[in-house]
Amino acid sequence: MARRVSEISTSLIRKMFEIVERAKKEGKDVISLSIGEPDFDTPLEIVEKTYKYMKAGYTHYTSNMGLEELREQIAERYGVESDEVMVTVGASEALLNASLAFIERGSTTLIQSPGFLSYFTYAKLCESKIYELKTYENDFKVSPDSIDIPSDSSVVFLNYPNNPTGAVMSERELKEVYEIFSEKKVLVISDEVYDHIYYDVKPGSLAGEENAIVINGFSKTLAMTGWRIGFVIARKELLNEMLKVHQVNGVCAPAFAQKAVAEILEEGKDREIVKKMVKEFRKRRDFVYGRLKKYFDIVKPEGAFYMFPKAYNGFVEDVLQQKGVALTPGEAFGSDAGDYFRLSYATSMENLKKAVERIEEFVESSGLF
Amino acid sequence: MARRVSEISTSLIRKMFEIVERAKKEGKDVISLSIGEPDFDTPLEIVEKTYKYMKAGYTHYTSNMGLEELREQIAERYGVESDEVMVTVGASEALLNASLAFIERGSTTLIQSPGFLSYFTYAKLCESKIYELKTYENDFKVSPDSIDIPSDSSVVFLNYPNNPTGAVMSERELKEVYEIFSEKKVLVISDEVYDHIYYDVKPGSLAGEENAIVINGFSKTLAMTGWRIGFVIARKELLNEMLKVHQVNGVCAPAFAQKAVAEILEEGKDREIVKKMVKEFRKRRDFVYGRLKKYFDIVKPEGAFYMFPKAYNGFVEDVLQQKGVALTPGEAFGSDAGDYFRLSYATSMENLKKAVERIEEFVESSGLF
Repeated sequence: MARRVSEISTSLIRKMFEIVERAKKEGKDVISLSIGEPDFDTPLEIVEKTYKYMKAGYTHYTSNMGLEELREQIAERYGVESDEVMVTVGASEALLNASLAFIERGSTTLIQSPGFLSYFTYAKLCESKIYELKTYENDFKVSPDSIDIPSDSSVVFLNYPNNPTGAVMSERELKEVYEIFSEKKVLVISDEVYDHIYYDVKPGSLAGEENAIVINGFSKTLAMTGWRIGFVIARKELLNEMLKVHQVNGVCAPAFAQKAVAEILEEGKDREIVKKMVKEFRKRRDFVYGRLKKYFDIVKPEGAFYMFPKAYNGFVEDVLQQKGVALTPGEAFGSDAGDYFRLSYATSMENLKKAVERIEEFVESSGLF
Repeated sequence: MARRVSEISTSLIRKMFEIVERAKKEGKDVISLSIGEPDFDTPLEIVEKTYKYMKAGYTHYTSNMGLEELREQIAERYGVESDEVMVTVGASEALLNASLAFIERGSTTLIQSPGFLSYFTYAKLCESKIYELKTYENDFKVSPDSIDIPSDSSVVFLNYPNNPTGAVMSERELKEVYEIFSEKKVLVISDEVYDHIYYDVKPGSLAGEENAIVINGFSKTLAMTGWRIGFVIARKELLNEMLKVHQVNGVCAPAFAQKAVAEILEEGKDREIVKKMVKEFRKRRDFVYGRLKKYFDIVKPEGAFYMFPKAYNGFVEDVLQQKGVALTPGEAFGSDAGDYFRLSYATSMENLKKAVERIEEFVESSGLF
């Protein structure tokens, strides 16, 4: 085993996934609120288009950069040129490619905290030091005042709408912190995979900014997690460095899926698909937040499909064992997050009602709150 | 840009791909013998099964390890346990995962030479030194006598059937060199993606060996390059280290494709699919080899769909410019390979006939041979 993987553990989220799968197979009544993907199946119109293009021979490698027709559609949406877009095998592959290309060994990687646990793994794979930008005091948004960072910082990971908190930074807020990082010569990797899933505050984007690499994909917005299509928006020079990794890593996203999504975007159908999902997510958020806020400190989520209430260290294990509700322990998301848990409301209203009742029962009977 | 990518250039093969695409768009009459994938579209029965499972909701993430039904089918084929199998996003992702997990920074990576250019990139991404195991004197097979290696060697890449030479090592030959590496505590990464594409000599496999990581996939054997399904066979302990990378990289291969391939394997249909392809490849190999061997030094290929004739440095450029035949320059495959070129016969007999005629014309008129 190489040193760079020695401090990485397999993800707590994945472990929860396996635990829940096992419990379900054993016939146990477990409700999972730990899933990081929309519960909706991919819309049938995407499936039908894919079938058409699979039969038409879109079964071969595409260019490493992705199908031109898809790159053009993405570019148009984000107001950039198509040669500033690279299609990847999901957003995760893009994040690893960016990390290997830009995180210098021994430098400091900045990670907003709480933050998605993968960022910590990317930093370790690059043998980088980690500096957490704590956001607890600012409703989980990176505050301009908090950017007092080590001088050897090379890269910062930002992620709004945020996993695990549901926090959103507006265009103005995001640009303000971007400018500070940019001034300090820190490259911003902006993970915007939830950009279409928001409620009242429209999330900002760093697409088109000189020192930003925007990571995105169709997994969350089109309910296509199992398809593996992500994309990157960045200056050509930056994309070219990432291409050096991508060409020996993911190589290209599934050809037929690229073609089908390009057509969906061209026809504007993605807008309807997202709208329908967000409408449902909003209902669920309002329900869960409305019921749980009297028991927990919760920052009202403005995007994605997560909330991040504060309970106590061990709460997740207790609720799983005593009530069969699977949540994700906060410790997965940063060093001060042990008292929190992530609740994903990407599951049916029926499940959410049952789960919320069980959590309420647990809290009421535990006498802990 | 981080130091680890500073010496990596974007692949010559990919550059050839782009050059040929551009030439074709401009209406130029170019025949490409530079492609690293079967020219056959994915068989319709795989497409139909995929469509069925896409509609059945196989559109979500699978476990990071892959769908259990697919792992079991693979395990049965290779005589291992299903928990020794991990499904990846193509063989390339698996190779990067293995590299990051096992190539220690500063150690020496052994690469058979000539060899597939990606291995050089993996070593560079891991900031490792590179030591080429030259195979020119042994029909492109690693000779047990040549294994006089640096003491800090951590990993060796082997690839049989071989890209770019078409060389095959038999079970006995492969095991013999494996034992030597194993004794020297060098982990063997055995890239066996062409294992079903062979002619007279059956290729050996290191599946089930304690110190070997076997990389494979369905891209080449089922004509599924654009689908991105690979797999790894290794001990659980080794897989677990690779999982640390995989979970933040490819995450999982496309769900519906995993399910469809599992069914194809269960029904044994993959055997017919491969058999038909290999029959065609054999015809083409015999044709091209039969015609070109009088002009070039060629080791008769026993597997994959490549041959690696010796010409002179600059031959590839000359033939492309003067005759419109695209080949891949040998220099992409190792430091002594500048006089060679890779010819891929994964194209129609019609194309091959035209291309061979043009190469013959060029050679006859150049007076160089």
